[in-house]
Amino acid sequence: MVKPDIIRDTATELLCRCGVPAREAAITSGVLIAAELRDIPSHGILRLSDYIHMLETGRINPDARPRAEQRSLSTYTLDGDNGLGPVVATEAMKLAIKGAGKAGTAWVAVSNSNHFGIAGHYSMLALKHDMIGISMCNANPLVAPTFSAEGMLGTNPLAVAVPAGEEAPLVADFATASIARGRVDLLDRKGLAISEGFVQDCEGRPSSDPGVLKKGGSILPLGSTREYGSHKGYCMAAVIDILSALLPGANFGPYVPPSVPWLTLKEDLPGKGTGHFFGAMRIDAFTGAEEFKKGMDVWIRTMRKAKPAPGQKRVIIPGEPERLAEERSSREGIRLQEKVMEQLRGLCDRLNVIWPL
Amino acid sequence: MVKPDIIRDTATELLCRCGVPAREAAITSGVLIAAELRDIPSHGILRLSDYIHMLETGRINPDARPRAEQRSLSTYTLDGDNGLGPVVATEAMKLAIKGAGKAGTAWVAVSNSNHFGIAGHYSMLALKHDMIGISMCNANPLVAPTFSAEGMLGTNPLAVAVPAGEEAPLVADFATASIARGRVDLLDRKGLAISEGFVQDCEGRPSSDPGVLKKGGSILPLGSTREYGSHKGYCMAAVIDILSALLPGANFGPYVPPSVPWLTLKEDLPGKGTGHFFGAMRIDAFTGAEEFKKGMDVWIRTMRKAKPAPGQKRVIIPGEPERLAEERSSREGIRLQEKVMEQLRGLCDRLNVIWPL
Repeated sequence: MVKPDIIRDTATELLCRCGVPAREAAITSGVLIAAELRDIPSHGILRLSDYIHMLETGRINPDARPRAEQRSLSTYTLDGDNGLGPVVATEAMKLAIKGAGKAGTAWVAVSNSNHFGIAGHYSMLALKHDMIGISMCNANPLVAPTFSAEGMLGTNPLAVAVPAGEEAPLVADFATASIARGRVDLLDRKGLAISEGFVQDCEGRPSSDPGVLKKGGSILPLGSTREYGSHKGYCMAAVIDILSALLPGANFGPYVPPSVPWLTLKEDLPGKGTGHFFGAMRIDAFTGAEEFKKGMDVWIRTMRKAKPAPGQKRVIIPGEPERLAEERSSREGIRLQEKVMEQLRGLCDRLNVIWPL
Repeated sequence: MVKPDIIRDTATELLCRCGVPAREAAITSGVLIAAELRDIPSHGILRLSDYIHMLETGRINPDARPRAEQRSLSTYTLDGDNGLGPVVATEAMKLAIKGAGKAGTAWVAVSNSNHFGIAGHYSMLALKHDMIGISMCNANPLVAPTFSAEGMLGTNPLAVAVPAGEEAPLVADFATASIARGRVDLLDRKGLAISEGFVQDCEGRPSSDPGVLKKGGSILPLGSTREYGSHKGYCMAAVIDILSALLPGANFGPYVPPSVPWLTLKEDLPGKGTGHFFGAMRIDAFTGAEEFKKGMDVWIRTMRKAKPAPGQKRVIIPGEPERLAEERSSREGIRLQEKVMEQLRGLCDRLNVIWPL
């Protein structure tokens, strides 16, 4: 177990060494640590070496100056100046919150950004303002639309955070694919098979080999097959792609720049960088905020007391496992994978940052 | 085959006989016929006898006067006065479109409404204004959250309509459950089994009996099981329930009034009627509308030319099958099920409307 603050400060220093200003470096490492605390290590410190590699090779602009433009009473576009995703996304979500303060709701379409980490983090920024926060982005084209043999869309996550009263907020944060890429990779590394309904090979045939992704295969949308509703997962990924790319002028579907440095950037891209879409809705622009939050308490307790299915304890409220993990790891510290620790130590050596452990 | 206009006019007359004013009756029958044209008969004329029964028994107010209130620059609430769902929803969506004209986007939370038919119909009203239209509602609690043995949420549909240029608009319109209730009923009537992963019995055990819904069983969320991501379908249904019920003050989850007359209304409901949530976003509140629509054409053509999976012709664009059905049935007429024809004829007899066929 390590203290999250120590890792966060080390990550901040490493980013500073790559030309990222202190404030922006702290925001970025804060988002990566938030993922660790919430037990989503696939979006945590593991990503730091990719971010640093992309900064060093000029794929990400360390000293980006995002430019926002108000386009109507309730809408904004923001050009991320090819900056670090967490920096751009934090600025965009703050703008949505500020805009909703005036207009009731506000919507920010973001272009020219990069991988932004966990979507839920941004939606949750709205909570303390008694707003519902919404966050989404497109991603590497690894997901095949229903009836496609090719990956054309990202795992395109959607996060919606809703304030409650005495209960903790409800935070839905999920990818629209049947499985996370990280889980496929893990099975591959362990040499295990993957159940059918998650991935297909490069010809679009069902596969139980988690290695197919590296051989032109793809992930199936949420729903897995047409019979079980994969067209619904595909619909969601499509809508998220359109809001995140076509509204702000970012790249869509197959043109989304890869968020890992070992995949090369396509030439002649139709848009600018990776896209995001954020929204904030003031509760009191619809109903009394206190009344709503009491209502959410009742909603949460009603779901929680549903009769459980055999072998289950009870219904889980969206965001509950991540919140419990966060409480635990804030107390006890986080546990980084061996591989991630080694990566971090290697980065410290190379960039002349004192290894803190 | 029958001409849709004939059935629509007959449905309008029938509704008028129940005290619905002519304009409101025409809106309602128009939405039911739209479902028939788009080959979604489960939401079509089949529903008319339920609507009429609920009008006759006082469960729906025939002469409702919905009351809208602007709550911020971009938000409204609308109390449907317990009117017919299609009437209330049409008024709410028009308000969203008008509001977005001024504020860039507008959002309308609706309480005190009833079953509104196909969600896609309302989202599509935004298209000719060069807006993205969004429509959702909650419904009878037939869907079990992940790990629940009980139905606590509706099949809660979401529809998003996006304008394109030369191509037809993209219209995603889907329920967030693994299967439509209509399909389960159909298998039950035919005495066929249902594949596992769609329904469970009243104890929460997997079931292949489509009759379980009438014995306290429930439908599984999109994703079917926890392993395949049912928590994501549950998250979506939860968010739609919250926006449609808690923002406007309608009933949530298990308290949603049944949309069929043979289920009795619960007493001491926490909110008012069934809830909906609508949004409209002006394209030019983000980017040039013409540029966006050209981009949508490219998006659609890019997905369409993806390499197809074995045995498939090509990737289908959301809304394409429904649009093709609409073109065909506008030309050739619609085919009503025998049972629906009989129902309609019976209603004409009873309510003194001349049977037109």
